[in-house]
Amino acid sequence: MKRPRIRELGVTVGRLPPGPLNAITDVPGVRVGHCTVVEDAPAVVRTGVTVVVPRDGGIWHNHAFAGLHVFNGHGEVTGAHMLETHGTLCSAIALTGTFSVGVAHEALQHYSAPNYGLPVVGETSDTWLNGRQRNLVRKEHVDAALKDAKGGPVAEGNVGGGTGMLCHQFKGGIGTASRVVEHDGARYAVGALVQANHGRREGLRVDGVPVGRKIGADKVPLAGPSAPAKNSIVVVLATDAPLMPMQCQRMAQHGSAGLARSGGGACDGSGDFLLCFATGNNVPLDRPTVGNLRMVHSDKLDPFFEAAAESVEEAILNALTAAETMRGFEGRTAHALPIELLRDAVRA
Amino acid sequence: MKRPRIRELGVTVGRLPPGPLNAITDVPGVRVGHCTVVEDAPAVVRTGVTVVVPRDGGIWHNHAFAGLHVFNGHGEVTGAHMLETHGTLCSAIALTGTFSVGVAHEALQHYSAPNYGLPVVGETSDTWLNGRQRNLVRKEHVDAALKDAKGGPVAEGNVGGGTGMLCHQFKGGIGTASRVVEHDGARYAVGALVQANHGRREGLRVDGVPVGRKIGADKVPLAGPSAPAKNSIVVVLATDAPLMPMQCQRMAQHGSAGLARSGGGACDGSGDFLLCFATGNNVPLDRPTVGNLRMVHSDKLDPFFEAAAESVEEAILNALTAAETMRGFEGRTAHALPIELLRDAVRA
Amino acid sequence: MKRPRIRELGVTVGRLPPGPLNAITDVPGVRVGHCTVVEDAPAVVRTGVTVVVPRDGGIWHNHAFAGLHVFNGHGEVTGAHMLETHGTLCSAIALTGTFSVGVAHEALQHYSAPNYGLPVVGETSDTWLNGRQRNLVRKEHVDAALKDAKGGPVAEGNVGGGTGMLCHQFKGGIGTASRVVEHDGARYAVGALVQANHGRREGLRVDGVPVGRKIGADKVPLAGPSAPAKNSIVVVLATDAPLMPMQCQRMAQHGSAGLARSGGGACDGSGDFLLCFATGNNVPLDRPTVGNLRMVHSDKLDPFFEAAAESVEEAILNALTAAETMRGFEGRTAHALPIELLRDAVRA
Amino acid sequence: MKRPRIRELGVTVGRLPPGPLNAITDVPGVRVGHCTVVEDAPAVVRTGVTVVVPRDGGIWHNHAFAGLHVFNGHGEVTGAHMLETHGTLCSAIALTGTFSVGVAHEALQHYSAPNYGLPVVGETSDTWLNGRQRNLVRKEHVDAALKDAKGGPVAEGNVGGGTGMLCHQFKGGIGTASRVVEHDGARYAVGALVQANHGRREGLRVDGVPVGRKIGADKVPLAGPSAPAKNSIVVVLATDAPLMPMQCQRMAQHGSAGLARSGGGACDGSGDFLLCFATGNNVPLDRPTVGNLRMVHSDKLDPFFEAAAESVEEAILNALTAAETMRGFEGRTAHALPIELLRDAVRA
Repeated sequence: MKRPRIRELGVTVGRLPPGPLNAITDVPGVRVGHCTVVEDAPAVVRTGVTVVVPRDGGIWHNHAFAGLHVFNGHGEVTGAHMLETHGTLCSAIALTGTFSVGVAHEALQHYSAPNYGLPVVGETSDTWLNGRQRNLVRKEHVDAALKDAKGGPVAEGNVGGGTGMLCHQFKGGIGTASRVVEHDGARYAVGALVQANHGRREGLRVDGVPVGRKIGADKVPLAGPSAPAKNSIVVVLATDAPLMPMQCQRMAQHGSAGLARSGGGACDGSGDFLLCFATGNNVPLDRPTVGNLRMVHSDKLDPFFEAAAESVEEAILNALTAAETMRGFEGRTAHALPIELLRDAVRA
Repeated sequence: MKRPRIRELGVTVGRLPPGPLNAITDVPGVRVGHCTVVEDAPAVVRTGVTVVVPRDGGIWHNHAFAGLHVFNGHGEVTGAHMLETHGTLCSAIALTGTFSVGVAHEALQHYSAPNYGLPVVGETSDTWLNGRQRNLVRKEHVDAALKDAKGGPVAEGNVGGGTGMLCHQFKGGIGTASRVVEHDGARYAVGALVQANHGRREGLRVDGVPVGRKIGADKVPLAGPSAPAKNSIVVVLATDAPLMPMQCQRMAQHGSAGLARSGGGACDGSGDFLLCFATGNNVPLDRPTVGNLRMVHSDKLDPFFEAAAESVEEAILNALTAAETMRGFEGRTAHALPIELLRDAVRA
Repeated sequence: MKRPRIRELGVTVGRLPPGPLNAITDVPGVRVGHCTVVEDAPAVVRTGVTVVVPRDGGIWHNHAFAGLHVFNGHGEVTGAHMLETHGTLCSAIALTGTFSVGVAHEALQHYSAPNYGLPVVGETSDTWLNGRQRNLVRKEHVDAALKDAKGGPVAEGNVGGGTGMLCHQFKGGIGTASRVVEHDGARYAVGALVQANHGRREGLRVDGVPVGRKIGADKVPLAGPSAPAKNSIVVVLATDAPLMPMQCQRMAQHGSAGLARSGGGACDGSGDFLLCFATGNNVPLDRPTVGNLRMVHSDKLDPFFEAAAESVEEAILNALTAAETMRGFEGRTAHALPIELLRDAVRA
Repeated sequence: MKRPRIRELGVTVGRLPPGPLNAITDVPGVRVGHCTVVEDAPAVVRTGVTVVVPRDGGIWHNHAFAGLHVFNGHGEVTGAHMLETHGTLCSAIALTGTFSVGVAHEALQHYSAPNYGLPVVGETSDTWLNGRQRNLVRKEHVDAALKDAKGGPVAEGNVGGGTGMLCHQFKGGIGTASRVVEHDGARYAVGALVQANHGRREGLRVDGVPVGRKIGADKVPLAGPSAPAKNSIVVVLATDAPLMPMQCQRMAQHGSAGLARSGGGACDGSGDFLLCFATGNNVPLDRPTVGNLRMVHSDKLDPFFEAAAESVEEAILNALTAAETMRGFEGRTAHALPIELLRDAVRA
């Protein structure tokens, strides 16, 4: 019995239409792959890795303009300097657990050979369900995620990097959504994919409804450490529009509105990162001396900002509705957001 | 018949308690002054200036740690470099219309003599109600606002810098709110004051309720240009807690969640700025060589972030409930948010 | 007896060739205007304003990509947020004394009507020669500088905004220089104009030679307060190459190497700012929906970075060789860098 | 026959006195460890790792205020977000080759257990001498460097992370230097350690003397690829003064003047990073709720900025004088800067 996506529950986030898959893969050329690492013996393992691969894998030699917004910086996204100073993404993006940043970095660098790449690896902490074990994600897992990368529908919830994650003290994980922006006769896709591991129960809002207060600890036990020190989300935004680097940065920043509206973001210990790339221009490695580019003029950006905020908000909610109850390290249980209670809450 | 504040309508934003005035003046030493410039002849004038004066006016010789967050940068806040690189506020803060930045800058600099100051002047555009006239705010108006600066209740709505402003295509203006944060046996105040001139009707949310969709253009005509190019908010956050500069910067950034939650922020042409200062440490000009400071440890910042978000959200709503319908330049009318319709919308 | 430029003294800074004027006006469309305000009665006045006007004055409706680097932030450059987040310059640039920021801001805004502009005004402090008098620069002075703006050779030294400035404790002021960058069969100009009011005597280097140590206080009295609190430089860099905003920002940052090499920059109280604009693309206000742009590929930027560093270094030296001894407020005298001693020092 | 340090050649960089070791280890509690990985069979290997360990190893539970300056961002320093937003260093610092970032990250994270750490790993590329081989640095090498970490004199040149590096197209590597700043009756140490892999021959300056032009390709063959795409330096600055995070950031930025003065920095493909930490305050993990801190007042920072610039400049020169000619991958030879020619050049 597949759990529904938020839109199937009658909740419409924002005003823009989603793409056909309502997923980041609505952006042409964007592929997503997961490798889920779940074992019960000899040790309990609940972790994994998710990759977002732009340009059908061609990102290593045809870079993309991109930008990064750091909403709260207690975490890691590698490759950030290149994003922030050159405005280019030169790598696939891996999302994983805190203790797998090194291996994912190395695996992406191997994969990119002979190009250099500057691997982009983001992390959130899955230690509550997975324990503080090291070396659980290995190079072959990252390779498997890269091999798994494809267009089409994206698995959500307890998959890949989202396997052991928590969200608003329910079970969290991977979620995705998209929007279509019509602009000057063309249609562009904007998509978001989140690894959601953030938020307190009381903060959760679904289209403005204070669901977290309605489904309190009395109804569903709180997942996560009692005093959460880590509490993070990594967001990948993509578009096929011809956005310049600063425009990507600003679109990422505006995406934080979606995080705020669903009740996230009030935590010193968070690593809340939003990365945005735009494939509407080619930035080839074997480049000519002077490039010809297209650019969406700044005063036409508003719908892209809206699309970013809406797709981030909906991707978070999709992570919540997709994720299923999981038992992990030391018998801890992260409960799924109960669909029936959610339906009642938003209907009221 | 005084219009109510949002809390008097039964709307409670967030979970933290407000201070006794529910205003930025709950922060000890913070004074607010307005000079409202409204004339009907020979020309229609709808503008003014509001000042926030820290340390009971002593800010010129006892600076304050501070930080700035730029949510969208199409606008002006002067004095920003000092805030961003040194983390200190050396000046009172003036909020006014776009074409009065120069005069307010000059007036603050005069006022600060013989100290140097680096005047902080923020602006949003009141040209829809006020026209594009220049030289309407004069040095004596800024001086009057400085002279008017006092503790106690703060006038909201169509006053001072907020006189000609619009918000979510209703009449906007000045609003304020505060929160109390208990921390380690002490109580700290966090206060926000906004000059709200942002937002589209359809985006407005009141405690999550989509009020802007419920009170559409069919019910209350939209104020503002049909294609708003400017669409901005300047937020001043204050606290008496001993926050370090980076902590102020981060508190300002987290305040943007309040803007997002009330439906603001999706506009290329916005100047959306959040400035935060903290008076819990003294930073005297005639300073000793090595200072002794107190600091709230980072992992205790969460309630300050929450207080920032909540007080920004409530201050925006207070600007809306306080502002009254105003007729201005070329007979344009900006309608107030109708209290009865609002009451119905949030009650439903 | 006109004082020589540094190159006439046989000093060649760097390896790239200068443009025909060796001035920022080698960049097509860049105009420079000065208004020098020198009076002896009733009060001693030593101040002024310099403007840099891109696109032959068309900058108000055809913006330019631009970036800002803040080497040390104790000072003011208005309009910075637009530069930093949108990467566009929408205004002429005015350089003046600290107490004239407000009036210059207002004057530029008037000038730009009916466009909005976001005036860019930079300042350094001329209070040692000019005193702390206010209201010395008036709107008509800024207008006069704008009217004076023209291509061709640029007056240097004690002119315009540089009138009352000091540099390495000699008399300072305005300086300019340029370089030619050949790239892919095209030739681009890179130009710098500085308002130099920075540096201690002992730090001054001329093409690596420690001239400041060779021409010490025993030889030429030190100008400036004994404990300089303010000590600043504002640099304007321009090019006709098609650089993107982030590339402008980086070119500005690399320009700081020229400041370092001539011995500047080690001061908390400095406002050391470098602004760079590039006119190689049009960014018209009445813009189409999707723009076509050219871009210098990042890996071809090195000569632009070099050109920035070299022209900044040479512009500072030109300010020093052009500026003449000046007597000012309370009889203080700022001595020019003696050309003969300089010649001896670099020859040795 | 040990190669001399630059100061032994009679070159005095700047005006401040060095500490007793003229090394970063003059800062109390700072330890440096190297693991040099040089093999000739089965493959030619020229790489390694260097670690800088603050607080005698206690950095994992007693963090340090810190800041990062990115002079050019084409490279990697992990852990940067924490430095930039929280201003704290929570980890030892590892410097290594580009392809060893992942393994060094993982090794530092293991080492820090059970604390979290946010490993700081910087890289420059040693592929010219080492080839593009992967997996050459292994976890045990990083562990060995950590185990080797100690106070006292620091090995320079072809050691640790510097093993395969080039500098100004001579052989480069690790260098270090320090300064003593007297302030308010106390003496503080400022130290720099560089992994120098940057610069073109023609740019090299030694105390202003254009040594790179005097010792051209005709005298000593150029090391490195003919068209250097990578060309980087990572700088670690340390002090025992009680600097706040923003002050560390600014000290790092001012350190870039030392890079500029020795002729570095004009390259798009550089990863030029300067990190600065200050141990003058304790930032314990098991922290009290409100901390008491000391702070050097901003207007007393100038000598710290000078110390940063001077020690960076001297550390680079020490890397050059210490590094010895090395033969590596495919028989390529990187020649040392010839001491006799250098002596002649600076004497002239």
